[in-house]
Amino acid sequence: MVELSTQYAEGFLPGAEEEAELLSAVKAAAQTLTDGSGKGADFLGWQTLGGDINHAYNAGRHGEYQRMKAAALRIQEQSDVLLVIGIGGSYLGARAVIEGLQGRYRNELTNGLRVYFTGNSLSAADLADITALTEGKRFSINVISKSGTTLECAAAFRYFRDLLSRRYPDNPEEVKARIYATTDAARGALKAQADAQGWETFVVPDDVGGRYSVLTAVGLLPILAACGAEASDSLLAGAAAAEAAYAEDAQSLSANACWHYAALRAYFYLKAGYKAEILSSYEPSFVMFTEWWKQLFGESEGKDGKGLFPAGVNFTTDLHSMGQYIQEGERLFFETVLQFEAADNPLAIPSADSDGDKLNYIAGKAFHEINRTAFTATAIAHQGGKVPNLVLTVPKRDAESLGWLIAFFEKACALSGYLIGVNPFDQPGVESYKRYMFTLLGNKDPKYDPVREELITRYGIVL
Amino acid sequence: MVELSTQYAEGFLPGAEEEAELLSAVKAAAQTLTDGSGKGADFLGWQTLGGDINHAYNAGRHGEYQRMKAAALRIQEQSDVLLVIGIGGSYLGARAVIEGLQGRYRNELTNGLRVYFTGNSLSAADLADITALTEGKRFSINVISKSGTTLECAAAFRYFRDLLSRRYPDNPEEVKARIYATTDAARGALKAQADAQGWETFVVPDDVGGRYSVLTAVGLLPILAACGAEASDSLLAGAAAAEAAYAEDAQSLSANACWHYAALRAYFYLKAGYKAEILSSYEPSFVMFTEWWKQLFGESEGKDGKGLFPAGVNFTTDLHSMGQYIQEGERLFFETVLQFEAADNPLAIPSADSDGDKLNYIAGKAFHEINRTAFTATAIAHQGGKVPNLVLTVPKRDAESLGWLIAFFEKACALSGYLIGVNPFDQPGVESYKRYMFTLLGNKDPKYDPVREELITRYGIVL
Repeated sequence: MVELSTQYAEGFLPGAEEEAELLSAVKAAAQTLTDGSGKGADFLGWQTLGGDINHAYNAGRHGEYQRMKAAALRIQEQSDVLLVIGIGGSYLGARAVIEGLQGRYRNELTNGLRVYFTGNSLSAADLADITALTEGKRFSINVISKSGTTLECAAAFRYFRDLLSRRYPDNPEEVKARIYATTDAARGALKAQADAQGWETFVVPDDVGGRYSVLTAVGLLPILAACGAEASDSLLAGAAAAEAAYAEDAQSLSANACWHYAALRAYFYLKAGYKAEILSSYEPSFVMFTEWWKQLFGESEGKDGKGLFPAGVNFTTDLHSMGQYIQEGERLFFETVLQFEAADNPLAIPSADSDGDKLNYIAGKAFHEINRTAFTATAIAHQGGKVPNLVLTVPKRDAESLGWLIAFFEKACALSGYLIGVNPFDQPGVESYKRYMFTLLGNKDPKYDPVREELITRYGIVL
Repeated sequence: MVELSTQYAEGFLPGAEEEAELLSAVKAAAQTLTDGSGKGADFLGWQTLGGDINHAYNAGRHGEYQRMKAAALRIQEQSDVLLVIGIGGSYLGARAVIEGLQGRYRNELTNGLRVYFTGNSLSAADLADITALTEGKRFSINVISKSGTTLECAAAFRYFRDLLSRRYPDNPEEVKARIYATTDAARGALKAQADAQGWETFVVPDDVGGRYSVLTAVGLLPILAACGAEASDSLLAGAAAAEAAYAEDAQSLSANACWHYAALRAYFYLKAGYKAEILSSYEPSFVMFTEWWKQLFGESEGKDGKGLFPAGVNFTTDLHSMGQYIQEGERLFFETVLQFEAADNPLAIPSADSDGDKLNYIAGKAFHEINRTAFTATAIAHQGGKVPNLVLTVPKRDAESLGWLIAFFEKACALSGYLIGVNPFDQPGVESYKRYMFTLLGNKDPKYDPVREELITRYGIVL
């Protein structure tokens, strides 16, 4: 389903010998994933999320999928607005899929449920805006946090739970029925709260890290609520097909697009000296998908002083902002382009009596076709500017393609991480600022004693 | 008004001798700007846009400011929706200011005019969404293009003009009264169309490039329509004050924050080997301001194989996605942080009877204060991770501060460009993909003959 073309990377690609080396390296990495013998092997549950849910709807750990569907219908019935409270991996995947399928104006265009993502910053202004968006509206909450103690999420949840309680001051049952918690199956602060309060819960599996979690309840419940069961089923079907396709052994890189992409990334990084990868697409609705991709790769590879810096652009918009730099600035990066084959709709350039804008030569042409021409022209121009372009083509901007792309990138990311020698499943650096933050906020846990010392010594901050 | 703190860059800063060299280099660059003796000197009109408009409201080239105010009121009266059609510099500045001041949900929260930006991609899906947003609504158009032949903009304008004409099939006067063209004062396709059709026009000055044009009619008309005259006046007043402040000679870098920022950027790039700069802020409403900043610096510096790659993050959101890479990935970048002193509002963490989320130790604390603590913690953590942090503090997220910031960054960008030896006012690389695109679209202009040849030879594309 995903085709990888290297046509616009000619002149920058590995030779036959290097390609053979890459093939055996990626084959070994793939085997490591299958065996569970590599770094971070406790976090390999993402590999079968599409297939598991499809093949065992009502059994095993994903038996809850049917329960998610029922909950999504209930959310739609009981609410005008769903607040999804989560950050990082508990936020980006669902938003990427919902906007990818329904566009960035879906909340303004829908007659149904509006879905807003919050608990993903500490901005008071943003919180006030979201509050205003719930005014006069029936709202429900899906709080997503494995531990329940991630600050942004916990703070926003406390705030909106308070708001909900004030909406229904004499009706704790109504409040309870409007809160859905996606969290650890057994442990943690949120699970304990949910059990005590009687909120319906869904599971963040132990063996799936946040950035790989979009096809668990983390992503699926908001997706079901916003896009419906058919879209969610197709998303999973696409992922399942990709999981099966990329599990097959291949005799050449070009026979397995996922291996191929991972191998070329590693080659560009390790051998060709590129420091960054730019993901581009030609659909504004894919801006959030790019953000999801940035977390996936940045957090998986950016450690031990290593990793390709992940950047995103949306074309043709950003050809008029970042285009100059990409064409002629420092040569730091290669580009990966997401392309959709089928047109979304037949909108075309209208003809005009007068040709004041000099567009009559393309009157009648579909925007989709012109957009595709812009892609071809850009790939040629950037290749000429020494930016190799890897082109990933999917049939259509639909749920199945999106599911396939998600599984494609997740596996490619895990392979890439192994190829450059890091653990693609941990994120030790994320803790760094948190230690300072909790200490500065006055958390008296003795584990922060050394941090308090450092703050005094280095910055004269006495707490 | 903008304070630059280097506290969280200690350990990475130039020594006294280097600082003296930087001071004399930036002084010379500033003199070049004043003299108009440097590269791109035909494009220095942005230097006085704040002051000019304020001091000569009704005279000279900005006499049109009062006319803009009248047009904005008329747009508000005659429309539910304003479509702003423009791309690159004809798009980013206005959106940055409007969202920076009113937040990213302003269209959903307003009872007044909704403002949508279009003509900035070739996506049929996006165009269809914008079309749907005008359904049942009275809409007007502000088309912004110096030449009138930029493809995205011209195509969308043709499309929405057609839609407008079909809305008022027997009333060409009504159509005419709903179109506002911001374009060249005398030349070009759009100016000719506007004159022929009788649309009201506003001027894109000859001596102000697109990415420096937010304080001309390019940015001001949409800003006036969305935010009103008081905000626009304050924006210009802030810019005027910054223009005056940074025109003053300084005896040390720390005495002129604009010089200081430009000099440190150049030092990090030329001497310390950094390849990228990450602009971060802690307000989601500033995502588009960051996009504006990326164009300003990327397009100004990214040429001749040079320039800092401009990247943006929004914290704390992206601490949970790009945070890992910034903390521990390849050491490629320094960070510039935008900070607002005053709180937007007093929203605070509510207290709770049960402390299931373990947040009672910060109950009653304002979100603004917690957000600021997250900033301090992050700056300390990133500095520890060998990412120097330059911190730019402004008093408040208001129009005056925003105007000041715009003038600050524009001047710093021009100085930075001169310091690294490029022309900060041209964008030759943007033409590259356009040549291929127009040729591929079938434009038969003989100037594209060599491009046709190249397409056959390199790609076998016969047109």
